[in-house]
Amino acid sequence: MSTQNPVFIPGPTNIPERLRAAVNVPTIDHRSASFTKLFKPLFQGVKDVLKMQDGEVAFFPATGTAGWEAAVTNVLSPGDRVLAARHGMFSHRWIDLCTRHGLDMQVIEAPWGSGAPADKFEEALKADTDHKIKAVLVTHNETATGVRSDIAAVRRALDAANHPAMLFVDGVSSIASMDFRFSEWGVDAAVTGSQKGFMLPAGLAIIGFSPKAMKAMETAKGHRAFLDVRDMLGANAKGGYPYTPPVQLLFGLSTSLDMLKEEGLENVFARHHRIAEGIRRAVAAWGMKLCAQSPDLYSDTVSAIVVPEGFDGTKVVTHAADKYGVAFGVGLGEVAGKVFRIGHLGSLTDVMALSGLAAAEMTMADLGFPITLGSGVAAAQDYYRDTAAAMQKAA
Amino acid sequence: MSTQNPVFIPGPTNIPERLRAAVNVPTIDHRSASFTKLFKPLFQGVKDVLKMQDGEVAFFPATGTAGWEAAVTNVLSPGDRVLAARHGMFSHRWIDLCTRHGLDMQVIEAPWGSGAPADKFEEALKADTDHKIKAVLVTHNETATGVRSDIAAVRRALDAANHPAMLFVDGVSSIASMDFRFSEWGVDAAVTGSQKGFMLPAGLAIIGFSPKAMKAMETAKGHRAFLDVRDMLGANAKGGYPYTPPVQLLFGLSTSLDMLKEEGLENVFARHHRIAEGIRRAVAAWGMKLCAQSPDLYSDTVSAIVVPEGFDGTKVVTHAADKYGVAFGVGLGEVAGKVFRIGHLGSLTDVMALSGLAAAEMTMADLGFPITLGSGVAAAQDYYRDTAAAMQKAA
Amino acid sequence: MSTQNPVFIPGPTNIPERLRAAVNVPTIDHRSASFTKLFKPLFQGVKDVLKMQDGEVAFFPATGTAGWEAAVTNVLSPGDRVLAARHGMFSHRWIDLCTRHGLDMQVIEAPWGSGAPADKFEEALKADTDHKIKAVLVTHNETATGVRSDIAAVRRALDAANHPAMLFVDGVSSIASMDFRFSEWGVDAAVTGSQKGFMLPAGLAIIGFSPKAMKAMETAKGHRAFLDVRDMLGANAKGGYPYTPPVQLLFGLSTSLDMLKEEGLENVFARHHRIAEGIRRAVAAWGMKLCAQSPDLYSDTVSAIVVPEGFDGTKVVTHAADKYGVAFGVGLGEVAGKVFRIGHLGSLTDVMALSGLAAAEMTMADLGFPITLGSGVAAAQDYYRDTAAAMQKAA
Amino acid sequence: MSTQNPVFIPGPTNIPERLRAAVNVPTIDHRSASFTKLFKPLFQGVKDVLKMQDGEVAFFPATGTAGWEAAVTNVLSPGDRVLAARHGMFSHRWIDLCTRHGLDMQVIEAPWGSGAPADKFEEALKADTDHKIKAVLVTHNETATGVRSDIAAVRRALDAANHPAMLFVDGVSSIASMDFRFSEWGVDAAVTGSQKGFMLPAGLAIIGFSPKAMKAMETAKGHRAFLDVRDMLGANAKGGYPYTPPVQLLFGLSTSLDMLKEEGLENVFARHHRIAEGIRRAVAAWGMKLCAQSPDLYSDTVSAIVVPEGFDGTKVVTHAADKYGVAFGVGLGEVAGKVFRIGHLGSLTDVMALSGLAAAEMTMADLGFPITLGSGVAAAQDYYRDTAAAMQKAA
Repeated sequence: MSTQNPVFIPGPTNIPERLRAAVNVPTIDHRSASFTKLFKPLFQGVKDVLKMQDGEVAFFPATGTAGWEAAVTNVLSPGDRVLAARHGMFSHRWIDLCTRHGLDMQVIEAPWGSGAPADKFEEALKADTDHKIKAVLVTHNETATGVRSDIAAVRRALDAANHPAMLFVDGVSSIASMDFRFSEWGVDAAVTGSQKGFMLPAGLAIIGFSPKAMKAMETAKGHRAFLDVRDMLGANAKGGYPYTPPVQLLFGLSTSLDMLKEEGLENVFARHHRIAEGIRRAVAAWGMKLCAQSPDLYSDTVSAIVVPEGFDGTKVVTHAADKYGVAFGVGLGEVAGKVFRIGHLGSLTDVMALSGLAAAEMTMADLGFPITLGSGVAAAQDYYRDTAAAMQKAA
Repeated sequence: MSTQNPVFIPGPTNIPERLRAAVNVPTIDHRSASFTKLFKPLFQGVKDVLKMQDGEVAFFPATGTAGWEAAVTNVLSPGDRVLAARHGMFSHRWIDLCTRHGLDMQVIEAPWGSGAPADKFEEALKADTDHKIKAVLVTHNETATGVRSDIAAVRRALDAANHPAMLFVDGVSSIASMDFRFSEWGVDAAVTGSQKGFMLPAGLAIIGFSPKAMKAMETAKGHRAFLDVRDMLGANAKGGYPYTPPVQLLFGLSTSLDMLKEEGLENVFARHHRIAEGIRRAVAAWGMKLCAQSPDLYSDTVSAIVVPEGFDGTKVVTHAADKYGVAFGVGLGEVAGKVFRIGHLGSLTDVMALSGLAAAEMTMADLGFPITLGSGVAAAQDYYRDTAAAMQKAA
Repeated sequence: MSTQNPVFIPGPTNIPERLRAAVNVPTIDHRSASFTKLFKPLFQGVKDVLKMQDGEVAFFPATGTAGWEAAVTNVLSPGDRVLAARHGMFSHRWIDLCTRHGLDMQVIEAPWGSGAPADKFEEALKADTDHKIKAVLVTHNETATGVRSDIAAVRRALDAANHPAMLFVDGVSSIASMDFRFSEWGVDAAVTGSQKGFMLPAGLAIIGFSPKAMKAMETAKGHRAFLDVRDMLGANAKGGYPYTPPVQLLFGLSTSLDMLKEEGLENVFARHHRIAEGIRRAVAAWGMKLCAQSPDLYSDTVSAIVVPEGFDGTKVVTHAADKYGVAFGVGLGEVAGKVFRIGHLGSLTDVMALSGLAAAEMTMADLGFPITLGSGVAAAQDYYRDTAAAMQKAA
Repeated sequence: MSTQNPVFIPGPTNIPERLRAAVNVPTIDHRSASFTKLFKPLFQGVKDVLKMQDGEVAFFPATGTAGWEAAVTNVLSPGDRVLAARHGMFSHRWIDLCTRHGLDMQVIEAPWGSGAPADKFEEALKADTDHKIKAVLVTHNETATGVRSDIAAVRRALDAANHPAMLFVDGVSSIASMDFRFSEWGVDAAVTGSQKGFMLPAGLAIIGFSPKAMKAMETAKGHRAFLDVRDMLGANAKGGYPYTPPVQLLFGLSTSLDMLKEEGLENVFARHHRIAEGIRRAVAAWGMKLCAQSPDLYSDTVSAIVVPEGFDGTKVVTHAADKYGVAFGVGLGEVAGKVFRIGHLGSLTDVMALSGLAAAEMTMADLGFPITLGSGVAAAQDYYRDTAAAMQKAA
């Protein structure tokens, strides 16, 4: 596959040149003052991105799955009841991971394409009068379905039930691309990774913990050693790391935080929204629909596009890869074959997005989809033309 | 300007990852055996690209302009008569350079958009009964107008006139992208650079000389020292360089030659043709015309597109750069303002080409051109779809 | 700290240019055929380095600590008895990790500077007549003390006791630098990482499992999800990954394996031995001693050098870093302050080693050590001169 | 040859990581505003390094030899008399280049190892009562002999003779490493390149011209086209370039200027002096001598070390390369075989310098030189220890 075309997978993202350079550094001593100097400012930097007023941030040399694991094993204990909704592959996997770690999962099944059901959460929480539920898990952005859930609504559900359960959020494919308000939403643990909104290679799990979660950590009996946050923060407090840190990715994170700050977080979010909206205009022009059930659920980082009856979304992906060297995402789990996904997170220009749409059009035409070449491109062009000036002004 | 969008200037080209890596090397001793080992195979490699059976190749740490200068100052003497046609900015500049070096230029003015006038060359050569003309200069690909001239026809003109003048060809924007037949066409000096078909940064002037040119070098009185081919080849013969060589670019050239060989030269040419033809289909769909007067002149490395009366080609370029972060080429000289240029040489995929077309469409629409968004993209998509399979099979 | 001086920490190592380039690649789709093509050959490549005839290899996007955890949690169950010796910081940490995961650790305390006590292992195993001990853990190379233990002897101890316990080996700082014989030694799980003998950045935990360990995995109840080998190998079997893989490091591993193969494993080991022996000659010339108790224990990847009474090894490290921009390793745990460490693993030339010795000499002289400047350098030069030819011949 | 050992050739230098990254950039449009923004500040930046109050600076995409050529062909005319001294290979080559360009060279032969003979210049200038001499050429740092000449003394000679000849200085291997005072010394043209004090790859010739030289340019008849300064400055004035610029090197120069400014020019010079003095202490400890005749002539960028009678300096270089993978410089011209050279310019640490000395010692010992291993290293260590603190304080 060409390494010259952008990728349109929902992460890892296209890595901007500046970050390519930032991670391309020689070995430095991770026990040196140079490392500490690099490392220390990352904590506040990530807190700013999470909009997190207090609590702690930890960086593990691992991927988002490890972030999920660290969040639950450090704060919860085997046998603890945890409330979650399954409405996509990634919420499914987090639930599965929790089960393996001995948590007592109370799962609300919801349609793939729907958001986290705040109303059903509220119901379940109200029913839990003796507060057996220790945590509620929510996947902020379901990468499988292109659905962004309303975390504030889940917080309101907790509040309405007057329930003390903690709120755990998977923000892997939302944080640093879409608005995330750790403190305002009363989040207790938020998980993300280096390879999405931070635009870096995979390899860094980033987790924020509220003071309440930190407190719970003191007595939590979840099984962890590599992912033990106490060891991590203990070493971090001295400017170090409990084992070998991923130095190159930490350099990258430092530059990524600079880039986000220079652009301005709200501008970053607006940029993602604009690129995403252009993609959605194209989908509409094609006469197709998103997997996400309603506009309020549309994700600004990934669009799962439902293919017409009788067509195979997976073939769109393999055909585009084989013939045009362009990578889209396949449908996963329940929507396997039914959708293909266009990832549009990280550093992506309108012009790059148009090339992805053009490749998708050629692919669908090749596969016999009832599609007019150029139609989606034109719809997106139209939108991008109108919105470019405002975007530049902001940036 | 975004460094994420491809550039669509007629060189330097987008540098493929493999060449980015190849030139990103630390300092090595250019008087060492390591250097010689790297350096030696480059000569045959370039000869293969030039389709050159005998003669010599020289690499100067400079740009194509220096290549022009080296070609004429090493082989000709001040006062020598040289025949050339002016039909674009780059033929104009080479003529100007020759004049400054004291050559007696016999210039045939031809319309910008036309090719080198083989018939008029034949006429002039036949008229030159005492063989005062020592050389004929031809610009294989006029980068300013997107015109590829017929070098074989110029050779036939020389033969028809039974004239001993040497044939000098500027192949800067053609060699390694379009077919070039040094020996078959009886070329005596051919000039190119690293930043076009070789897909490298600028900084290497590459020149091939026929045995006849090498012979002429012995008595030529052109002024040169930095660009003296005898010094260069003398040092090269010992595996070295007469001064500091551009080591990084030579590493790059080595890899570039590998890439061209692996793909196959004819496949490289076919790939350029395919990308170019898609662009041309788009131009036709826009209802616009190329500066090149007829299809046999169409360049496969750059298209100069004539803007409608009342519009300004230069504004297309500045607007595309400012609003969309995409670089096209402005019109130069006689066609300044009248055209804008899309460079499509080097390592460019169909998908990248489509992004350039999409950007051009948005730009033209913004500027009020009577253009339908998506129309050119659709025409190119159609062509690319049909031709992708054949291209892949060949590669 | 200078990024121009080599580092002399016991990993991560100095990254060779070729590996710097190999990991500096753009994002590719990890669900594509390109990824599978890259990924598949890595398994056999690593088996060759481990000298492993059968069994399985897994790559986790994490560090060596995660490798330790994956080894024990996938094969053992909470409550299982595990025999281990504590004779350095890394054996200590692995024991600690096992304890946290609920294993019943039977720990033999041995002096720091000694090797794994095969005789005491044999004693303990023989005493364990009802075979409660499920596994024996050994740290092949104690990075803290510069001690290489005799794994074959531990295997003999198991055999002499006719004990079915599995043999788990931490080869993080030995594998790919010193001889390791997975199958011949009857190893059941071997752990290493990308940042030592493989000369890459940290971020890849590499683990080999014997068929016996694979069998045990079916019933093991260790807590794992992110580090579940069954999920990993299941996905790998289809050419994929259970979550986002560390693509850049896998590209790097591919090239690292090529480099090791091209040089020849035995040559790699001989090269490490030669560099290490030069360092040891220098230490002897300084009139100092290694922490390792006897020559048969000397590590070829790291030397822990005992500082004279009244001096502080940690100060050597901080002074060298502050004044000369050179990174050595501090003493850890029991030997904190008592030693400083010179890491000499990975891609290190004799000339680089000499620069480290020169820096150490200046540092010790600055701190008032009874050291003659140039003395250690001269001893190492002498040795390197004598052995360079043989090394080159082999390579 | 290893790419891990530093090079000790007198340029190109070891390229610092920051500059490796700076030149590793994708293609940008050299006719865009982005280019202009990068390009414009370079002029003042270089003037600051040259300590140049007025006049102009030009950057050619070529090497230092082209810089020599541009200096003389733009300011002088064929037939002009030029005074120069030949006391090394590089002064010899510049004289040769001038001769080829038709200048009337009045050459003072001086011993290799001596500096430019200001007294003899004065004599010649005083004798030139009708001011036929249009320019005096001086090689500030003779890279072949490791001799730094006294430019101020040459200026005094011109002044003492009350002679209007212009002063042309080759500062290729001095500028940005040793003090250079363009305006104070009354220099009219100064030549340097990217690959020495600026620590970049070769490929950029950098030339400063005084107002007087600029004035002379109006009527100068030297043959030039590629190297025509008027074209260059004309295009530069509009933020552009007369042909394709070496974009990557210009990015590199921008960062190089930042680095020099951040460190402070005087600190850069002091750093070079310190590294050089350590090398010289080593040479003295070896009982050997420099080619430079007296301490006031010692170059801080390169040391040419005279080998004892009966030994071959060239063998030192080939042996060090073959056996130890370390690059030194051979003797050139008159001192071929008689010396070997250690380049110590650009970004080199004391620790790197020590590794070069250690390699030289092993090499000389191998070749039977009467040398004590470690002796030179010790002398340099001693000096570096004493001077490290002052250096750090300044930086």
